[in-house]
Amino acid sequence: MSDIQDLRNELVIMSKYGSALGVLNWDQEVNLPKKGHAFRGEVNALLSADLHNRFTSDKFVNLVKNLHKPENFKKLSTDEQIIVRETWRDLEKSLKIPTEMVEEMARLSTQAFNAWADAREKSDFKIYQPYLEKIVAMNQKQAELIGYKKSPYDALLDDFEPGLTAEDVEAVFTPLAKELAGLVKKVKDKPKVKLPKAKYPIDVQVKMNHEIAAALGYDLDAGRIDVSPHPFTTGFHPTDVRITTRYQEDDFYYAVGCTVHETGHALYEQGLPAKEYGNPLGEAVSLGIHESQSRMWENFVGRSPEFCHYLNTLLLKYFPNNPKLTDEQIYDHLNHVQPSLIRVEADETTYNLHIVLRFEIEKGLMEGTIKVADLPEVWNAKMKQYLGVEVPDDEHGVLQDVHWSHGSIGYFPTYTLGNIYAAQLFNKAKSDIPNLEAGFKKGDFDKLLNWLRISIHKEGSRYYPEDLIKKVTGEGLNSKYLIDYLGSKNNKQ
Amino acid sequence: MSDIQDLRNELVIMSKYGSALGVLNWDQEVNLPKKGHAFRGEVNALLSADLHNRFTSDKFVNLVKNLHKPENFKKLSTDEQIIVRETWRDLEKSLKIPTEMVEEMARLSTQAFNAWADAREKSDFKIYQPYLEKIVAMNQKQAELIGYKKSPYDALLDDFEPGLTAEDVEAVFTPLAKELAGLVKKVKDKPKVKLPKAKYPIDVQVKMNHEIAAALGYDLDAGRIDVSPHPFTTGFHPTDVRITTRYQEDDFYYAVGCTVHETGHALYEQGLPAKEYGNPLGEAVSLGIHESQSRMWENFVGRSPEFCHYLNTLLLKYFPNNPKLTDEQIYDHLNHVQPSLIRVEADETTYNLHIVLRFEIEKGLMEGTIKVADLPEVWNAKMKQYLGVEVPDDEHGVLQDVHWSHGSIGYFPTYTLGNIYAAQLFNKAKSDIPNLEAGFKKGDFDKLLNWLRISIHKEGSRYYPEDLIKKVTGEGLNSKYLIDYLGSKNNKQ
Repeated sequence: MSDIQDLRNELVIMSKYGSALGVLNWDQEVNLPKKGHAFRGEVNALLSADLHNRFTSDKFVNLVKNLHKPENFKKLSTDEQIIVRETWRDLEKSLKIPTEMVEEMARLSTQAFNAWADAREKSDFKIYQPYLEKIVAMNQKQAELIGYKKSPYDALLDDFEPGLTAEDVEAVFTPLAKELAGLVKKVKDKPKVKLPKAKYPIDVQVKMNHEIAAALGYDLDAGRIDVSPHPFTTGFHPTDVRITTRYQEDDFYYAVGCTVHETGHALYEQGLPAKEYGNPLGEAVSLGIHESQSRMWENFVGRSPEFCHYLNTLLLKYFPNNPKLTDEQIYDHLNHVQPSLIRVEADETTYNLHIVLRFEIEKGLMEGTIKVADLPEVWNAKMKQYLGVEVPDDEHGVLQDVHWSHGSIGYFPTYTLGNIYAAQLFNKAKSDIPNLEAGFKKGDFDKLLNWLRISIHKEGSRYYPEDLIKKVTGEGLNSKYLIDYLGSKNNKQ
Repeated sequence: MSDIQDLRNELVIMSKYGSALGVLNWDQEVNLPKKGHAFRGEVNALLSADLHNRFTSDKFVNLVKNLHKPENFKKLSTDEQIIVRETWRDLEKSLKIPTEMVEEMARLSTQAFNAWADAREKSDFKIYQPYLEKIVAMNQKQAELIGYKKSPYDALLDDFEPGLTAEDVEAVFTPLAKELAGLVKKVKDKPKVKLPKAKYPIDVQVKMNHEIAAALGYDLDAGRIDVSPHPFTTGFHPTDVRITTRYQEDDFYYAVGCTVHETGHALYEQGLPAKEYGNPLGEAVSLGIHESQSRMWENFVGRSPEFCHYLNTLLLKYFPNNPKLTDEQIYDHLNHVQPSLIRVEADETTYNLHIVLRFEIEKGLMEGTIKVADLPEVWNAKMKQYLGVEVPDDEHGVLQDVHWSHGSIGYFPTYTLGNIYAAQLFNKAKSDIPNLEAGFKKGDFDKLLNWLRISIHKEGSRYYPEDLIKKVTGEGLNSKYLIDYLGSKNNKQ
């Protein structure tokens, strides 16, 4: 058998182990009884270590290294070159970080998570500070080991958004922040129209959310919808992609927003080419592009006037005895802009300002221009600057997100990158497909999904995110489309 | 590190892989979307092969073989000797069967299962016959490889009920069959009292079944109850033991019977000593003893007059608007005896005759005194002899059970062995604990559970099934107690 075939086979085997781990993790979030967590942790650690050892084994490293040598590489087909290039990219990075450092980070993040939870409960950043300092220091060390051109932050970003640098992000985030901060000032005092109070029994909501997800194109014979406190999507293979959502009895939209967002992720995973399962051509390209899918469906589709009309017909069908709403009331309910303290509760517009703030802080921490000890002060000043809100305490400020305690720095920007990509893609889809949004009124989303299947999903990781966007829209990363979309939406209101 | 410690560690690691596989299998039965089955099959095959390779690796074989050598074995503590002895027992058997034969059986059973499903649908045994012939032949070959004293059936039985021979089973089944066949003749024409028709909404039944399971002692912080078409119990570790049940809206007992049965299995798994996790001292000893637990709770507890009273109080609590029943009506509903064609729908008494029939057939097939081609005829004659019923077609006769198509011969006896053990154990528990059954009326089952914890659960596989029964009751396997119990119950009615 040829080396490239060996590589393909080995990648499939590793992905199968990854899928097994994926099922264990899904089960942990959705099903695991309380007392089962300690033991499950041991099982997951065992399988994770196996997978890591397999990936970094001499045999595998030599196989990839050999295929990556110029004299061998040039003999490969384009597809094969992509597989080798991307596998080598991941592997090279893994090899640069010593195993002890990986283990140290795992230990540290367990401690840091506990310290964070404790600090948050007591609303006292000082409890968390020493751990976060260690996490920043360790990320700096790793960035040095991995290498970067300008900012150590580049080395981290590259994990989530291959090819993108801090400079690239800054170039789109800075104008976005300026525009949105101005926009928010204008609309922030508009009162929210109150909907009549009503109960939406959860068992009926479950049925409605299944109908919505199926209408968007989610194949429920190759997926399922469960409940978890933090909704997420996980794909084990294109034939088994699962989402979770959460319900509130007094708010019909609470679940719908989550469901539509996660369905966006699931559609991407179900649309990846199954015949390339296991190798980069069969994998989602980046977190930012993933997020562009979830956010396009959640925001550009799911908050449109047409979707509000569709949702209204479903409310009439499933909750015939509840107070009737107008499409406009629903639209207003879904699109109200209000600066607030907590990212995960933020509206579509202000959400991006929460992200810009985190990006600037992460970059400053990595470059050493911001000290961990000063974080509460920096955080509160930026919240005032961008959103005009006063942060009352650390719990509602710098301690609100769990991400850093996991050791993860560089993740946050992908949320707003997703919004920016989504705006660019949706703009292009609208110009490609006449009357794109008209079908939404009747729950017909096929045209958009087919467009995404062909433009994004089927490509896997064939192109780097920025190249993919360029290929599809004719233009690189650009926040203009998101600014225009949010601007025109907010000025209309 | 010492060899015995190596062995203990390696057994824990293999059990962790086994637990991971267990979660994948549970997920497959309970959650897996339709289109995900093909891929999941590949993942499970990969992990199963890994586990098999690990178990039969030279390194592991040599480790166990060495510890099993008399000069080393005698230096071990009693507990250590049990671990080595039982591990060697399993390993020796695995090593006697060539890998090609295991693979051939896997292939054959896939084909046989399809043929069985097809044959059953068309009610035509001939479609299934050639596959079953191959399965019998392969089981005979395996029995020769493994070795046995008297009957080749002994070699298969030993997999499910260590130490038990066909002769042992015959010695308890023959008198049982004679007594029960007589009993059934006497009571078979007693009409069943009809309960008033009523609907029991399934979401409310779910709550009631959770309350019952918890009352029996099932720790739901270390377990959960889901729905599957074929209810089962699976334990990944004593801190994560799960059961499934199934519901019918017009029959409150359909689910309760399943739930109580599976809870019996779950209580055993939750009661195994966690500190011995992975090795034989932490494992259930046999399928027969496992079944003694489920059947004791399902039948000896769950069909008692006291339990019927308890169940009635729950029906009043959960279904206050349904027709009121008397405790006696419930008792009659749960205890009616009626010879019938299908094993899984049989009552507590006639069930055992279905099993004796299967045991006699399996033994005959293995010993060559019954030919596969004659099975429909033999089956129908035995049904007439034991149960007095005419079998109208193969679907309702010889084709009703899936077991043989999986390649599994020797499993059936464990169902009735479970009933026999249960009768012996329950008889002993009653003599040890005054007024044992009185608490059942109030949903208090602690005394029985504590007795089982100490007598059975905590022992793991320390003793062979027959020795365990002897240790607890002072007597070996004996069907007298089951005969007495069923006799006195049926004569009372």
